Amino acid sequence: MAARATSIIVDWGTTSLRAALVGNDGAELEHLETADGISSLAEGQHEPALMNALAPWFSKHGALPVAALGMITSRNGWVEVAYVPCPAGPAELAAGTVRRTLPNGSDLVFLPGLNDPGRQPFPDVMRGEETQIVGHGLTEDATLIIPGTHSKWARVKAGRIDGFQTFVTGEIFNLLINHSFIARGSAQPPVDDPEAYLWGLKEAKKSAAMLSLLFSARTGGLAGKLSAQQLRSYVRGLVIGQEFRQARDAGWYAEGDDAAIVGNDGLNDLYLIAAGEFGVRISMGDDDALTKGALAVLQKTLS
Amino acid sequence: MAARATSIIVDWGTTSLRAALVGNDGAELEHLETADGISSLAEGQHEPALMNALAPWFSKHGALPVAALGMITSRNGWVEVAYVPCPAGPAELAAGTVRRTLPNGSDLVFLPGLNDPGRQPFPDVMRGEETQIVGHGLTEDATLIIPGTHSKWARVKAGRIDGFQTFVTGEIFNLLINHSFIARGSAQPPVDDPEAYLWGLKEAKKSAAMLSLLFSARTGGLAGKLSAQQLRSYVRGLVIGQEFRQARDAGWYAEGDDAAIVGNDGLNDLYLIAAGEFGVRISMGDDDALTKGALAVLQKTLS
Repeated sequence: MAARATSIIVDWGTTSLRAALVGNDGAELEHLETADGISSLAEGQHEPALMNALAPWFSKHGALPVAALGMITSRNGWVEVAYVPCPAGPAELAAGTVRRTLPNGSDLVFLPGLNDPGRQPFPDVMRGEETQIVGHGLTEDATLIIPGTHSKWARVKAGRIDGFQTFVTGEIFNLLINHSFIARGSAQPPVDDPEAYLWGLKEAKKSAAMLSLLFSARTGGLAGKLSAQQLRSYVRGLVIGQEFRQARDAGWYAEGDDAAIVGNDGLNDLYLIAAGEFGVRISMGDDDALTKGALAVLQKTLS
Repeated sequence: MAARATSIIVDWGTTSLRAALVGNDGAELEHLETADGISSLAEGQHEPALMNALAPWFSKHGALPVAALGMITSRNGWVEVAYVPCPAGPAELAAGTVRRTLPNGSDLVFLPGLNDPGRQPFPDVMRGEETQIVGHGLTEDATLIIPGTHSKWARVKAGRIDGFQTFVTGEIFNLLINHSFIARGSAQPPVDDPEAYLWGLKEAKKSAAMLSLLFSARTGGLAGKLSAQQLRSYVRGLVIGQEFRQARDAGWYAEGDDAAIVGNDGLNDLYLIAAGEFGVRISMGDDDALTKGALAVLQKTLS
């Protein structure tokens, strides 16, 4: 017998709204995506945009509880939801949700982000990754890596997210590739070169002087050692390698430790290679961690 | 009696051409600047642009030897001049010059840049700073800092430039302030805040995790601790502080050591404050180091 639709998960970010229709067995039945990111919506436009996006599902299945998360709950979103402090699990996150009722009677539950008050100089923050971590599972203590524009390293301990730290690796890579002295030297269109990526990782492993190491993207070309085709992947290796080096020195792992890669921002394979280079033994998380985690918090909220 | 004009020094960069008319006593008599940077000139336009810029001086003083340096001698300039390897002083630099004769009979001497074959993973390079270092003086062994978009740390030893290392600090600062998540949070128009700069330096001193530390520019705002007015200077402190931290760990100085700040890229006061924070005792170089150095190499070349 086919699964019955029981809830909707909305991952609502800066540039897009992505939704999943979820069945009573927890499986994703259908997906949709619109360009109604929060950057394109003025005050008062959020509810109509959401109702419009979900109309096909509401008309077929009636009112359904909706969990919304991501930048939609930030200061620039629809409803600002306060960060819940670490350590936190589904119970603490559920206690931090904000509830509304949609025009068709559906419960709308905004999931909170997480902060880590223990980080210096200011509490660190995440919005969305905490839900992926919950979906990945909290039953075993673990170190988790969530690659992204702002990567997160997190620790699961005693059934809760114990703490985390952000690294702006993807952002620095994008800046360098698109706007810096490196942009002019790179092949167009850009190409990915696995060997050059590995080379960048190895150089990052050798040097703590990141501000100096980045200049090797120019000197390598001047020396005739690094081609325009290699440049992009080499620089990516430098910055992801620096993340692994800095995360190690900050105490997130020691060589030989286990960690899991969670999320699906398109960088997981690159992080897997970096982990191998830095001696971290990796298990890969499932792609549906976000939906699983959102369901877990939603159920805690509505029960 | 007034000094007699005896030579011309041309600092010819990407966006401008700056020239100094120099007297027989080594003093700068006159200055001029045009927007004829190498990025605005096609092949064949360099000599006419130079003759046009210097016409007032040539018509008044006749033919004069001209030293040209900067990006004009790079691959994208007029005449590519090969880098001279460290260790090098005026004699080695003079041996690496390329000579032309201008239409009015003036000697035109292109000064070479310098490379450091000892740097990993590729030889480091400079174009222009080596001339500033020569002008600052090579008689005493010293550690020099030349602040800039791509800062240089250099060692003078036994009368020559012994080695150097580049840090792309200014470039990273510009990227962050103009194009990153930080750009959106900063006050417009930007303001300088000496206390926020010092705060950034102190945080950089505490943390080697640069990719994580940069995120404090966002979390500080979220925590209500860092204002839009403080953001720019705080971030500047973070990155210049990271340069001092990384230069120290790379062996350029130990706390309590002496160093001189050379050049005049508008950052010297900020670097002086950073040096104080990291325990480096600073002497400030003279503003005319570039002219002095170019004269020294020009005289070696023409003698």
